[in-house]
Amino acid sequence: MTTRHDDPASPTTPDAAGAAPGATRTERDTMGAVEVPADRYWGAQTQRSLEHFDIGRDTFVWGRPVIRGLGLLKKSAALANAGLGLLPDDVARAVVAAADEVARGGLDDHFPLVVFQTGSGTQSNMNANEVVANRAIEILGGVLGSKDPVHPNDHVNRSQSSNDTFPTAVHVAVALELAERLHPAVDRLVAALDAKAAELGDVVKVGRTHLQDATPVTLGQEIGAWAGQLREAQADVRYAGEKVLALAIGGTAVGTGLNAPAAFGPAVADHLAAETGLAFRQADNLFVQLAAHDGLVAVSSSLRTLAGGLMKLANDVRWLASGPRTGIGELRIPENEPGSSIMPGKVNPTQSEAMTMVVTRVFGNDATVGFAGTQGNFQLNVFTPVMAHAVLESVRLLADACRSFTEHCVVGLEADRERIADHLDADLMLVTALAPHIGYDRAAAIAKQAHRDGSTLREAAVASGAVSDADYDRWVDPEAMTHSD
Amino acid sequence: MTTRHDDPASPTTPDAAGAAPGATRTERDTMGAVEVPADRYWGAQTQRSLEHFDIGRDTFVWGRPVIRGLGLLKKSAALANAGLGLLPDDVARAVVAAADEVARGGLDDHFPLVVFQTGSGTQSNMNANEVVANRAIEILGGVLGSKDPVHPNDHVNRSQSSNDTFPTAVHVAVALELAERLHPAVDRLVAALDAKAAELGDVVKVGRTHLQDATPVTLGQEIGAWAGQLREAQADVRYAGEKVLALAIGGTAVGTGLNAPAAFGPAVADHLAAETGLAFRQADNLFVQLAAHDGLVAVSSSLRTLAGGLMKLANDVRWLASGPRTGIGELRIPENEPGSSIMPGKVNPTQSEAMTMVVTRVFGNDATVGFAGTQGNFQLNVFTPVMAHAVLESVRLLADACRSFTEHCVVGLEADRERIADHLDADLMLVTALAPHIGYDRAAAIAKQAHRDGSTLREAAVASGAVSDADYDRWVDPEAMTHSD
Amino acid sequence: MTTRHDDPASPTTPDAAGAAPGATRTERDTMGAVEVPADRYWGAQTQRSLEHFDIGRDTFVWGRPVIRGLGLLKKSAALANAGLGLLPDDVARAVVAAADEVARGGLDDHFPLVVFQTGSGTQSNMNANEVVANRAIEILGGVLGSKDPVHPNDHVNRSQSSNDTFPTAVHVAVALELAERLHPAVDRLVAALDAKAAELGDVVKVGRTHLQDATPVTLGQEIGAWAGQLREAQADVRYAGEKVLALAIGGTAVGTGLNAPAAFGPAVADHLAAETGLAFRQADNLFVQLAAHDGLVAVSSSLRTLAGGLMKLANDVRWLASGPRTGIGELRIPENEPGSSIMPGKVNPTQSEAMTMVVTRVFGNDATVGFAGTQGNFQLNVFTPVMAHAVLESVRLLADACRSFTEHCVVGLEADRERIADHLDADLMLVTALAPHIGYDRAAAIAKQAHRDGSTLREAAVASGAVSDADYDRWVDPEAMTHSD
Amino acid sequence: MTTRHDDPASPTTPDAAGAAPGATRTERDTMGAVEVPADRYWGAQTQRSLEHFDIGRDTFVWGRPVIRGLGLLKKSAALANAGLGLLPDDVARAVVAAADEVARGGLDDHFPLVVFQTGSGTQSNMNANEVVANRAIEILGGVLGSKDPVHPNDHVNRSQSSNDTFPTAVHVAVALELAERLHPAVDRLVAALDAKAAELGDVVKVGRTHLQDATPVTLGQEIGAWAGQLREAQADVRYAGEKVLALAIGGTAVGTGLNAPAAFGPAVADHLAAETGLAFRQADNLFVQLAAHDGLVAVSSSLRTLAGGLMKLANDVRWLASGPRTGIGELRIPENEPGSSIMPGKVNPTQSEAMTMVVTRVFGNDATVGFAGTQGNFQLNVFTPVMAHAVLESVRLLADACRSFTEHCVVGLEADRERIADHLDADLMLVTALAPHIGYDRAAAIAKQAHRDGSTLREAAVASGAVSDADYDRWVDPEAMTHSD
Repeated sequence: MTTRHDDPASPTTPDAAGAAPGATRTERDTMGAVEVPADRYWGAQTQRSLEHFDIGRDTFVWGRPVIRGLGLLKKSAALANAGLGLLPDDVARAVVAAADEVARGGLDDHFPLVVFQTGSGTQSNMNANEVVANRAIEILGGVLGSKDPVHPNDHVNRSQSSNDTFPTAVHVAVALELAERLHPAVDRLVAALDAKAAELGDVVKVGRTHLQDATPVTLGQEIGAWAGQLREAQADVRYAGEKVLALAIGGTAVGTGLNAPAAFGPAVADHLAAETGLAFRQADNLFVQLAAHDGLVAVSSSLRTLAGGLMKLANDVRWLASGPRTGIGELRIPENEPGSSIMPGKVNPTQSEAMTMVVTRVFGNDATVGFAGTQGNFQLNVFTPVMAHAVLESVRLLADACRSFTEHCVVGLEADRERIADHLDADLMLVTALAPHIGYDRAAAIAKQAHRDGSTLREAAVASGAVSDADYDRWVDPEAMTHSD
Repeated sequence: MTTRHDDPASPTTPDAAGAAPGATRTERDTMGAVEVPADRYWGAQTQRSLEHFDIGRDTFVWGRPVIRGLGLLKKSAALANAGLGLLPDDVARAVVAAADEVARGGLDDHFPLVVFQTGSGTQSNMNANEVVANRAIEILGGVLGSKDPVHPNDHVNRSQSSNDTFPTAVHVAVALELAERLHPAVDRLVAALDAKAAELGDVVKVGRTHLQDATPVTLGQEIGAWAGQLREAQADVRYAGEKVLALAIGGTAVGTGLNAPAAFGPAVADHLAAETGLAFRQADNLFVQLAAHDGLVAVSSSLRTLAGGLMKLANDVRWLASGPRTGIGELRIPENEPGSSIMPGKVNPTQSEAMTMVVTRVFGNDATVGFAGTQGNFQLNVFTPVMAHAVLESVRLLADACRSFTEHCVVGLEADRERIADHLDADLMLVTALAPHIGYDRAAAIAKQAHRDGSTLREAAVASGAVSDADYDRWVDPEAMTHSD
Repeated sequence: MTTRHDDPASPTTPDAAGAAPGATRTERDTMGAVEVPADRYWGAQTQRSLEHFDIGRDTFVWGRPVIRGLGLLKKSAALANAGLGLLPDDVARAVVAAADEVARGGLDDHFPLVVFQTGSGTQSNMNANEVVANRAIEILGGVLGSKDPVHPNDHVNRSQSSNDTFPTAVHVAVALELAERLHPAVDRLVAALDAKAAELGDVVKVGRTHLQDATPVTLGQEIGAWAGQLREAQADVRYAGEKVLALAIGGTAVGTGLNAPAAFGPAVADHLAAETGLAFRQADNLFVQLAAHDGLVAVSSSLRTLAGGLMKLANDVRWLASGPRTGIGELRIPENEPGSSIMPGKVNPTQSEAMTMVVTRVFGNDATVGFAGTQGNFQLNVFTPVMAHAVLESVRLLADACRSFTEHCVVGLEADRERIADHLDADLMLVTALAPHIGYDRAAAIAKQAHRDGSTLREAAVASGAVSDADYDRWVDPEAMTHSD
Repeated sequence: MTTRHDDPASPTTPDAAGAAPGATRTERDTMGAVEVPADRYWGAQTQRSLEHFDIGRDTFVWGRPVIRGLGLLKKSAALANAGLGLLPDDVARAVVAAADEVARGGLDDHFPLVVFQTGSGTQSNMNANEVVANRAIEILGGVLGSKDPVHPNDHVNRSQSSNDTFPTAVHVAVALELAERLHPAVDRLVAALDAKAAELGDVVKVGRTHLQDATPVTLGQEIGAWAGQLREAQADVRYAGEKVLALAIGGTAVGTGLNAPAAFGPAVADHLAAETGLAFRQADNLFVQLAAHDGLVAVSSSLRTLAGGLMKLANDVRWLASGPRTGIGELRIPENEPGSSIMPGKVNPTQSEAMTMVVTRVFGNDATVGFAGTQGNFQLNVFTPVMAHAVLESVRLLADACRSFTEHCVVGLEADRERIADHLDADLMLVTALAPHIGYDRAAAIAKQAHRDGSTLREAAVASGAVSDADYDRWVDPEAMTHSD
């Protein structure tokens, strides 16, 4: 086997290129030799996993966030090891450079493993170790697969175990996705709702409880409640998000930190914080970080709460837009696409539908995470990969769905003021304003009478003898009833 | 301690009466002596459980169905043992009599244990053994607590282990509750829907998809779909219900049937079938019956599907009844009670609300059952009690909710024919009937034009030039569009 | 109808006594007259609910916490109304006195309604209004059912709607149950674990990852991890618990606060805080409090996380105690009761089983709450009762199970030091300590060799030539490997 | 725009090739013109969806099964329409040919849409209509985008609506995946277990209940129970699978079958059956098929039950293989890969871990499906895509995991007969065999004594005076206790 590092042009190529198609090279681990594709940086253990875990390959290969997390971690670990004098300088420099390539996405094609593997993520940790080692070997002019001068375990994984690194990489991935993807998308949605609430805030309309006509609210209050619920849910996500800033790193195999200097974990956390701008820190109790993944459970729960608020929002929007002629019809949603393949001219609340489907998926993911989170034994919970995947999927879907819903629905919402006014005129529950003046029982009799004979509330009120026309004008003022000023 | 069996008048008293208030008697098990209330039939092991498992006492004491199941089982086991010559005749007769009292409910106050105990239900099995033994001792004139002439283990539990009896008693309980409680309630609901569909079947109305006006349906079709969905779900419950007719009895401790003659299990199943009229049989693989409770899982799943159909029904009803003036308002529901403590005259779809809340509870119970069902180890799944309780609770709630919804909502449903007709007139999706004649694209243009300028579909169709008035009459016939004949 | 207040002896009787058995009195609401039992304080609307919602009556009648919450709320509301000059002094005093009786538990028998009713809890709010009104009427010498001088709506419910009161009462109930029941129980469990960790902290033992022998830990670390996980989960419960201190009160029907002075809600919150010592406050956005119940969702989620930690604890304990002879057997649990009805002398980890069953129930309850929490529409989520019930049930079960597990398992845990030492001697993963000295690959070869030929690690290490006896002594020090000092 | 059908070489090219890179063509729908990539067959509606639903694009694009289902459906629909004289012969032939290409996978790159779109799947149905139409136009020498001579709605979608076609395509996809992927994989797993049970069937070993030593079983019984549970679960999957053979086709927009001849739906089902060999049929109640997707719910439930059995299996295997020295260690699993990046020589039960992670995912998917299944309104449930995706993902993962577990774990399982024999010797629960001879209480005393003083059961039995050595030999025969012959 001729490796590409003989070719001075290739060492910087991120593709282990130069290999003949179908060519392989021999890699070794403690179990023996394995053939791997010559143009891939991965080694024996990655290859074994590839062969033993052919599960959901189409869609469950790790994506950017986890690979980035692994890259950032391996880089930070090398910097920490170097700082502690545990790695030769050139090895450290090459490992840092190679890990940086991993972090930046240049080597994603060298991470072929799927979620459903060993439950500690050992195989993905070794995938990172092997790719970084071989790429560093290449940088240093060595022979791929030789483990010389860079060994995947003794150097790249120095002071580490999969049991602390994989959860750490996952925490990094989740924290970054929350910060860079989810919160900005929720912020934009909430801002769009606030803007819409301001734009339509003065519209007084029928409130509805139990799906029945109730006392009036303003559209500003109604839309504001959507924004308010999301804002509170987002605060919960931020609280939970704090928990994934606490890292397992330094705990190594079982939480004791065997084979790692005490200063290693905090140093890695500091480097990760410097790399990302997020306040990562070594967790207080490393045993807990390995034996359980309650940070992920908490994040998942908070995403479920957020999803619940989005379901309420999406449902309210589509019901308020229902019709166009025989539903509520108080809101108009953008007509983004034809609604039906058989009913010409139909327009459907498709953004609401996509959003509510995402919500059901987030609920399912949370069920997965909650269940998996209970199944740890002794010093390790071996459901880390599936928990990480589910949380990251939820983050991604919620962020995408918030963005889509904002752009293609919220900003284009319009009020049908005429229909809203007609509805308000018809609302019998304006009678509530009479109750403090004439008592609940007489007020009820008036509303029932109006309902029975189809009269207006004013007609029934005056006919009852309990309320004069002037009283009615003075007492029943829908706008005032909203207490909106 | 003076026991009541000295008193010739008391042996038939189901209350171990005659004891002084607060008096106790000494009962023994393999761990030693325990004081139990003198007026209770239970023994040492029940008492120990009572003291060690004070968890959710208010609401998690076993109810009628499981106590009945235990009684029926102990009776059938005694009959089978007697038939196999394993019990002295008088002992057998007394045990049968005592167990029969348990089955019929006369001794419910002697079953004080809660769901959250040992996961095999051993303590409830021993509760049954102890109560039956002491009551049988009493019948035979012996001394309570003496285990003579009836021993709770050697006689009442003869040829049995908790590991096969408790799941068997639970299966009996679930099967009876399905047969006696759930199916009749669902039958009545479906029948009421069928009757309502017949009563209102001719009403042609707007169909709705995506909450948007669509092509017409009849109320008969709409209501029929509710009934149809429930009917299919009920069939699934019946299928799953077959699974709990297969009994663990005869497997004893680990499924091998140690200490039980091979003929015992089938004989018990036969006696249970004779007692209940249900086709109980010994399961094919007794190891599976102990190591897993997938019969309960399957029943729970099927109840979830049924609950889903009930949610759809209850939601459709309340949305169709929404308003009264600013919602859809095509159905009128019975006014059973005032709806609001502040809004006089309000009427709410409360039966729908109770039903949908029950549905969420059934979903939660199913989550419990599904989770618990996975947690078996080796020869036993020790989550039987919580699974049994959740399934029985779901059965009870669904049955009660179906009955309530039928009586207090479905039978009183009325159509607002005038509003329905107005809605149908306004429905732009009648345009669909034009598409086969003038093509999808031109039909869409007509519907959009009508929507834009608020005209009727006929006006827009004729104005388009593609359809004459006569064409419109011939092609757009809402009733014909329902294909309902 | 003769009411008992004619009898000077009875007015203070909390039982509306003096009525003949089976006697009824006529109560009225806006729908007309209803007969209610003469010895009950409830009125027409409670009676209607009783008749229309016969769902799960055995176990779903509201218990102490919610009745107490309603009592505290009605008392605080009366005080607030009085402070605002909205109630006559004598009416206010009588209402306060009656509500106080409700809060203290004296009138629990007058709260017969079940969870599955109207989704706003209106019927339970009216139950409270009616009971308080009639009891206050009685105190003031009036005629039960006369609504004079105390009207259930106009006085007891003054400035309130069910839509703000019921969620408020539920928040009060949940906050009190967390503070008085759950946290003390968790505190005791954590303290017991801490004590046990201190007691057994020095025992060095095999760590286990993937269920496989791993590098050593101390029992103090292992038990400390259980405590640590619970402590973090408890912190999450406290965070979520803050959310239920925010109250809907003052929002009335739809969040606008119609018919309530702006000062009313804050005043009620202040009175509730004074009554309970908990920092209740009016929520910032009342619309959100009615339209969603995310405070309950968040509490439920946090209980799920706590339950997950308890599952880990209970599972670890029973696995470490597995055997007695063919399992792990490193811990001994208390022998509380005989374990088997067929296997004499068997002792089972029953407290673990009860705990893990509770966990599955809490997961199910959380599924109910999460689902129900998404189903609000417009100004109201009508799943409040089922959400409240599920959360309160989880709190109760977790508290009871923690107490039971503490008393009947944790405090009695003992280490089998001999077996633990034998295991540690056999542990091949002590090899990990060699890796930094001889490299991962040679270390692996040693461990594999020992595994293959059944030799000790020391034997294999020395035989490999890579490690001398003296090296072995210096490098392989299990206690030092735990980094426990 | 020059389309490729001018080039005699290209019409059969499945790639709309020949277009310049970045070139677009104009497509139109009822909302106007849209630019689409010139080398793609899709049209305006697909393009609109692509732009409006950028949600989870990486992993939620529809895969082979649904595209195949759509292709098979469009082919069968064209055949049915042709048979009913509703399509010109050449159009029918071209549509059939194009749809066949879709079914066979040649045009997968022309299906770019994701799961999270309109909830009826309209956009994917239109994607199929547009691709088939343009490809058919190409075959017939027409101009792409011209809708002439093949119109996506009027021809390809003839007699159809998305509301009946998309659920139909999903049912076809699920049925095929079950038949071709899942059942064979489960069959192989069960067969491997049966073979292993036969191979090791004679090994007598300790049974375990409550994780505690219990009466003996054979390995054949233990492994047979795993197989038995899976077999029963598979039967449930088959039962549920029957439900997806019932198709919505013919119901069109709302279930009435508007614009479709009555013979159309049955004819399509017949063609689908002929194409696939599966017994597809038109559903009895088409309204139910649109308004709910309980077939999918039932399949998902049954997959959950199957997953539960797999969890039991995978857990039992890894616990029985725990150790190697300080766990149970009765089974040896294949050493497929190094287990730890820090602990040299460690081997972990990674196939069990992958399997149990898959199980938690299947549970989450089922939560999604169950939730989504309840959220239909009126004539349509608009959660079809997310339900379809979750069910298909579960099928795929279970099939893959079963195959992986079979090949890489089950077939290589070995018994550690020596350790098993040692364990059996030590098992105190052999005492159970004494109980029928000397009574439960004396037997318990013997077991407890042996446990207390560490003696063997035989020693304690003989020392008790209740059992002679000869009795012991006669009564305590572990193999006989298994009743395995």
